[in-house]
Amino acid sequence: MITDEFSDPARRPVFPPAQTWDAMEMAFGGSLPHHGMPPDELLTLVEDKLLPAAGNPNHPGLMAYVLTASQPFAALMEALVAAIKLRPTTWKNQPASCHIETTVVRWLGEMVGFSDDAAGYLTTGGSWANMVAMAVARVRKAGWDVRAEGLHGHPPLAAYVSTEAHSCIDRSAELLGIGANSLRKVPVDAHFRIRIDVLDNMIRADLNAGYKPFCLIGHAGTVNTGAIDPLDTLADLATQYEMWFHVDGAYGAFAALAPQTRPLFAGLERADSLTIDPHKWLNTPFEAGCILTKRWDDLGDTFSLIPPYLRAAMGEEHNQYEYGFELSRTDRALKVWLALNQHGVDCYRDLVANHLSLAQYLAELVRQADDFELVSTPVLSICCFRFVPPELTPGDEAVETYLNELNHDIEMSLMQDGRALVSGTELNHKRVLRACIASHPTTQAHVEQALTLLQAHGRELHRKKGGPR
Amino acid sequence: MITDEFSDPARRPVFPPAQTWDAMEMAFGGSLPHHGMPPDELLTLVEDKLLPAAGNPNHPGLMAYVLTASQPFAALMEALVAAIKLRPTTWKNQPASCHIETTVVRWLGEMVGFSDDAAGYLTTGGSWANMVAMAVARVRKAGWDVRAEGLHGHPPLAAYVSTEAHSCIDRSAELLGIGANSLRKVPVDAHFRIRIDVLDNMIRADLNAGYKPFCLIGHAGTVNTGAIDPLDTLADLATQYEMWFHVDGAYGAFAALAPQTRPLFAGLERADSLTIDPHKWLNTPFEAGCILTKRWDDLGDTFSLIPPYLRAAMGEEHNQYEYGFELSRTDRALKVWLALNQHGVDCYRDLVANHLSLAQYLAELVRQADDFELVSTPVLSICCFRFVPPELTPGDEAVETYLNELNHDIEMSLMQDGRALVSGTELNHKRVLRACIASHPTTQAHVEQALTLLQAHGRELHRKKGGPR
Repeated sequence: MITDEFSDPARRPVFPPAQTWDAMEMAFGGSLPHHGMPPDELLTLVEDKLLPAAGNPNHPGLMAYVLTASQPFAALMEALVAAIKLRPTTWKNQPASCHIETTVVRWLGEMVGFSDDAAGYLTTGGSWANMVAMAVARVRKAGWDVRAEGLHGHPPLAAYVSTEAHSCIDRSAELLGIGANSLRKVPVDAHFRIRIDVLDNMIRADLNAGYKPFCLIGHAGTVNTGAIDPLDTLADLATQYEMWFHVDGAYGAFAALAPQTRPLFAGLERADSLTIDPHKWLNTPFEAGCILTKRWDDLGDTFSLIPPYLRAAMGEEHNQYEYGFELSRTDRALKVWLALNQHGVDCYRDLVANHLSLAQYLAELVRQADDFELVSTPVLSICCFRFVPPELTPGDEAVETYLNELNHDIEMSLMQDGRALVSGTELNHKRVLRACIASHPTTQAHVEQALTLLQAHGRELHRKKGGPR
Repeated sequence: MITDEFSDPARRPVFPPAQTWDAMEMAFGGSLPHHGMPPDELLTLVEDKLLPAAGNPNHPGLMAYVLTASQPFAALMEALVAAIKLRPTTWKNQPASCHIETTVVRWLGEMVGFSDDAAGYLTTGGSWANMVAMAVARVRKAGWDVRAEGLHGHPPLAAYVSTEAHSCIDRSAELLGIGANSLRKVPVDAHFRIRIDVLDNMIRADLNAGYKPFCLIGHAGTVNTGAIDPLDTLADLATQYEMWFHVDGAYGAFAALAPQTRPLFAGLERADSLTIDPHKWLNTPFEAGCILTKRWDDLGDTFSLIPPYLRAAMGEEHNQYEYGFELSRTDRALKVWLALNQHGVDCYRDLVANHLSLAQYLAELVRQADDFELVSTPVLSICCFRFVPPELTPGDEAVETYLNELNHDIEMSLMQDGRALVSGTELNHKRVLRACIASHPTTQAHVEQALTLLQAHGRELHRKKGGPR
């Protein structure tokens, strides 16, 4: 069953058919089981009921969210991780898991040019990693003992990020008690990059109002369009205003591997911390998010309950659990370590480069098509566009409203089609289709097929809907 | 390799032999791999280098921390979870995973008498679950829009928990920006239960000082000794002072399954939220911590970015990701669902009851032994005791210092022995040995063997050390 998922990845649709609550309740719900049932019956249930009601990330038509295929060998080894409860706690208790995690963070930092000697740990995903970065930033830059004293009775903190930020940055500001209101959303330019002039004004205004600007967050590839903020300039500003400089590269940082996009990441090496998610572009199983910092003590001073002189960055006193929130967390690094060893980083460089080319290819197809409009030119591997019936002229309000509806419906329609999947987003008040090409099974033929399918669904829906009212 | 871990669980020591940094660096470190290597070589590496440098939770001699054996079938199915990136996000996208998670939280709530209709989700572990509970408590009880406004410029918050609390409660107060200083540690009675009289005084003092008491945390089984706070009385106090009442039952709540201990949990049904970790006493693979609340909106109002009327507690609009911090997180519920279905809850009731009896049996052995002193009588399945050479009289300072050293050394010595494992803790300034019996392979014979080994190590070490100076 598991190997079939990889050997015949298109046997199941990329998006599951609609399921009713009642059907799922029948299969998985009901009352608390008092007596057991044999594993083979459970296995049948999983095969017959669970698989058809689960998405299929290994499908070559997947170009949605930042979801990517899994990795067969690493996935199988997750059974071992689960069997022996492998976890990076203390060196004494789990030397292999501790060492593998320190190795993986070092490799990731080197791969993307953040640091050849990075500290860090593997998280549930980008949300958790970004939250950790803001927690570290607070400890380093607040100016008081924030762990002991909290946020009450001190100057209000302020953090800065562009309006293109992932919602997890809001959630992080909320969770940390900073408050979403103190997260400044800086407008973006025509290429969805943070506007430095506005940012600078906002910081000055906050300083005048008694705020303590503590954290500046840049993007190494936004999730919406792949935009890369001017990292070098942000690093200058962070230095000038004594802020922590964090970069969210959950999706995009791996593009620093590819020669054609590497220059865009200039300044990444000046960041204090970086979010980078191997379970995205490295196509590893979930969960493999990652927070990287320059120094182990950045994390240790944020989480550890023992003093710095009792912690060791290297050697047999290095206990990974001093550098994160949890005491026991499952090993998330082995899958990344296996994937990097099995394929080698050159293979991932080629994979990324290929995805960059495919996104450009898709953009070209969109440009050439009569009934598509390119909304954002791919910087990395994300292409945003929309279906525009050739007889309609965008700009008019009724037409725009109709196009928003139509493109939303196309997105939904492709979900039920199951042969390809893109997601939708909103750019400049336009509902657009967003293809994120970051999954290794996806080839040029699948990109072509996805566009053909979108076109067919678009034409069919437009015919049915009949145009703007 | 994976099945061997279960079929021959004592083939590897319960605690790994000491490993040097250099040996691990040789096996798992080195420079970034540019070219790949075949999976079978990696498999050999895992077998030859990783397994010997990893702990063995399936070993029947394991009685340390709150670590327990894994579950073969559920562990194997983790490979499927990893292969298809199964995750409880939206109903549309992942109906099976969403439904399985809602089912598991409902079953867990019913099993322990918290609620027959609980909301919740599976977390990385108890730390995360307790942190979520405090985040929910803050949203519900602070008295202002804490998500938007944060903690600055409002009355300081205060939370209450006994001195026996797990360190994750401190870390949670820190992370949430409340500050460790605002976490009131309430002293305990002779049975390690929170002292209600002192608690009441502390709350009154805080109210007088302008604090807003927002969260009261009780224990349904502390990690140190298994002590259960008087939950009914705590519920009264929480009501009286309009605080959120959270119960940390990460380890102990499952003892509510057993008839002999169920009465101790009276009042649990009045808690607003409960931490309960299936990866502890249910012996499932990592990670399966869990936060339960009475209402879906408790979690939704804490994390969701969409308004309550767009969320649905049931039906095809139920999107699990609205109720937690992350958007994408791996499926953690399937393993619990499989374990409960495979064995049935009656089997877990018997398992827990057996562990309770084994702890009593161990306490009896300790009482009868000449060279052990029982330090805490088991309430649940934890027994704390220490080795006291018969010729020494505890109480004297030099003797106590010596006993602390000696018992610490015994603990370390058993680690390297590898045939059994207990952990150590400190109770009333005494270093003690702590056996936590919560793993299904552990039988009466293993309990006897552990004590025999501790005795042998104790005698040997005492002979070498020669007594107090």
